[in-house]
Amino acid sequence: MGDTAVDGGDAAAEVVAEEVSRLVEQAKELQDVAASLISRTTREEDSLRARVSSLDSNIQRLSSSIRKKTNMDSNQAEKLEEDLFKARYVLSESDAAAFLPGKTHGRFLRMFLGPINVRANRRDIQLNVKEEYNSFRDRTAFLFILFPALLLMLSSRVWGGCLPALPVQLYQAWLLYLYTGLALRENILRVNGSDIRPWWIYHHYCAMAMALISLTWEIEKAPDCSQKQLGVQLFLIWAIVQGVAMLLQNRYQRQRLYTRIALGKARRMDIVWGETAGVEGQLKLLYFLLFFLQIFEAYCGIQLLKTAVVGVVSEWQVVTCGILLVIMAVGNFTNTVQTLATKSRVKAKMKRGKSKQDLHQDKSS
Amino acid sequence: MGDTAVDGGDAAAEVVAEEVSRLVEQAKELQDVAASLISRTTREEDSLRARVSSLDSNIQRLSSSIRKKTNMDSNQAEKLEEDLFKARYVLSESDAAAFLPGKTHGRFLRMFLGPINVRANRRDIQLNVKEEYNSFRDRTAFLFILFPALLLMLSSRVWGGCLPALPVQLYQAWLLYLYTGLALRENILRVNGSDIRPWWIYHHYCAMAMALISLTWEIEKAPDCSQKQLGVQLFLIWAIVQGVAMLLQNRYQRQRLYTRIALGKARRMDIVWGETAGVEGQLKLLYFLLFFLQIFEAYCGIQLLKTAVVGVVSEWQVVTCGILLVIMAVGNFTNTVQTLATKSRVKAKMKRGKSKQDLHQDKSS
Repeated sequence: MGDTAVDGGDAAAEVVAEEVSRLVEQAKELQDVAASLISRTTREEDSLRARVSSLDSNIQRLSSSIRKKTNMDSNQAEKLEEDLFKARYVLSESDAAAFLPGKTHGRFLRMFLGPINVRANRRDIQLNVKEEYNSFRDRTAFLFILFPALLLMLSSRVWGGCLPALPVQLYQAWLLYLYTGLALRENILRVNGSDIRPWWIYHHYCAMAMALISLTWEIEKAPDCSQKQLGVQLFLIWAIVQGVAMLLQNRYQRQRLYTRIALGKARRMDIVWGETAGVEGQLKLLYFLLFFLQIFEAYCGIQLLKTAVVGVVSEWQVVTCGILLVIMAVGNFTNTVQTLATKSRVKAKMKRGKSKQDLHQDKSS
Repeated sequence: MGDTAVDGGDAAAEVVAEEVSRLVEQAKELQDVAASLISRTTREEDSLRARVSSLDSNIQRLSSSIRKKTNMDSNQAEKLEEDLFKARYVLSESDAAAFLPGKTHGRFLRMFLGPINVRANRRDIQLNVKEEYNSFRDRTAFLFILFPALLLMLSSRVWGGCLPALPVQLYQAWLLYLYTGLALRENILRVNGSDIRPWWIYHHYCAMAMALISLTWEIEKAPDCSQKQLGVQLFLIWAIVQGVAMLLQNRYQRQRLYTRIALGKARRMDIVWGETAGVEGQLKLLYFLLFFLQIFEAYCGIQLLKTAVVGVVSEWQVVTCGILLVIMAVGNFTNTVQTLATKSRVKAKMKRGKSKQDLHQDKSS
């Protein structure tokens, strides 16, 4: 009886031992499978990357050589350029986009994240990142209006025109988080092939610096608080208008993204016509608001500098924030004008192309 | 002559047109190649992920069932457990590690980065991330000693015992960046399979909050500056000792990592013996320093709370920073003790295993 129990135990032990050695074998096998899968994938991806990158530079080379050729029929040259544009669009909007030469990670990302790769290897993930960026901006735009509106209301109704430090500092800490988050996300978008203008990222670095500096600014100290807080009040009003502009901008950019995804999925290449169609009125309002904001931003900065020059407030924070506001206003203005110029150039070209196409269709019909 | 030129132009145009259509074809082809490569890789990776994950849970299941089996020879049970441990080690240290079920991204990463994936898909990249994290800590440990030492020296030599606000605020802004960077990197490490204790990340959230709060703390305002700055001075001294501890900790962890990489490459599985070998003396000094630091941290916190209770300084920043320091000290202490307990448990187990092995070897020789 005792023997049988031991035998039973032994048999069970043998079964377990067999299963253990089976699992050990499996682990070794999976190790090899993983190693070979990774090396094969790396090899294939590298080779595809090389092909995509060489095709990309060939397209660019040929496109510029067509533009230089003077002895070519201008109609035909435009048709060829358009074909090349479409080929480039196929590369940049399809799954091949993940293999296009990307922008490097940049100092800011490395400072905060270290060497980790934030480039998505699939186009749908890249688009998802952009979509989330827009919804992050949407969510924050509401807070961007809500916080300063609340502060201004409480200031006039409850605090007798004089803001206490803590709620303003909470707001500034939130701004610091917001601008850091935006700068990180925009750098990630750039790595993933977004054509975001570098200035908008620099703009957020300036805004981060301003939020950080204004945290150290003691707004309660001076005897005449309303004089001292003039700059803060102006800044809060500006923030509300900025929030409205952000909401409008988000709506516009979202529509544009949807159009691009839809057209990209349908593999139709004429995105540039679709791009601004239907939002023309909105776009005009947006630009009007943007220019108004930039002038207002510069005005806030100059007001801050004035209080420092007149001698009401002599802290370094006031001067630095004033200078930063003026820099941001000038940079924003320059970049908005450049964007407008590019847009109207592209539009004019497309109109020319379209009227030619219409002509062509008229001929063929 | 004119005709020939046009003919020449036409011929050249035809060559260009041919090249354009070739490039368009290539773009379409690469689009398909990319799509099929991505879908195939995704499929293969998903299937490997499922296999690795099922093997991982099988190992864990069998390991716990062996521990529960009472009718098994204890020697044999230990041998089997060790085999399973080795199999798990093969999974977690080889290329297969990239396919182990990972930790989710967590709120903090999503707050700052959005939905981008920061999990590296190759083990060598994961190790590279950890290596860079250590070198980041090395670089910052020096600054961690340098900045407060400089401030304290200037305070006693130049500023007559009373720190001006700006240099202290610059230091606090640097601390805010440092702790944000550490928290982001540690969250990224966790996603990549590092076993970093969650507390150390929470600790950095507390430190971020403290740096942010101390930025808003007006240290110049009070009439008796030396009384008010007592907490700041204590904090600076604590920071210097903390810097020394960071340097020691980095050295220890780096040696441990090197050992693991070397053993992992040699595919020898007995990491746990090698883990603490050779750094025993260093480890004792490290733990002594860590406990000293934690007591000192709590002392700083209590001093801050005291000044608030006595009524010398009544700002909310003082109370909050005091509470945060005490929380961090208690948390650090608890976690260091837990780490020590785990280490000594593993060591005892390994010693038992080793003496049995020696016995076994004695028998067989």
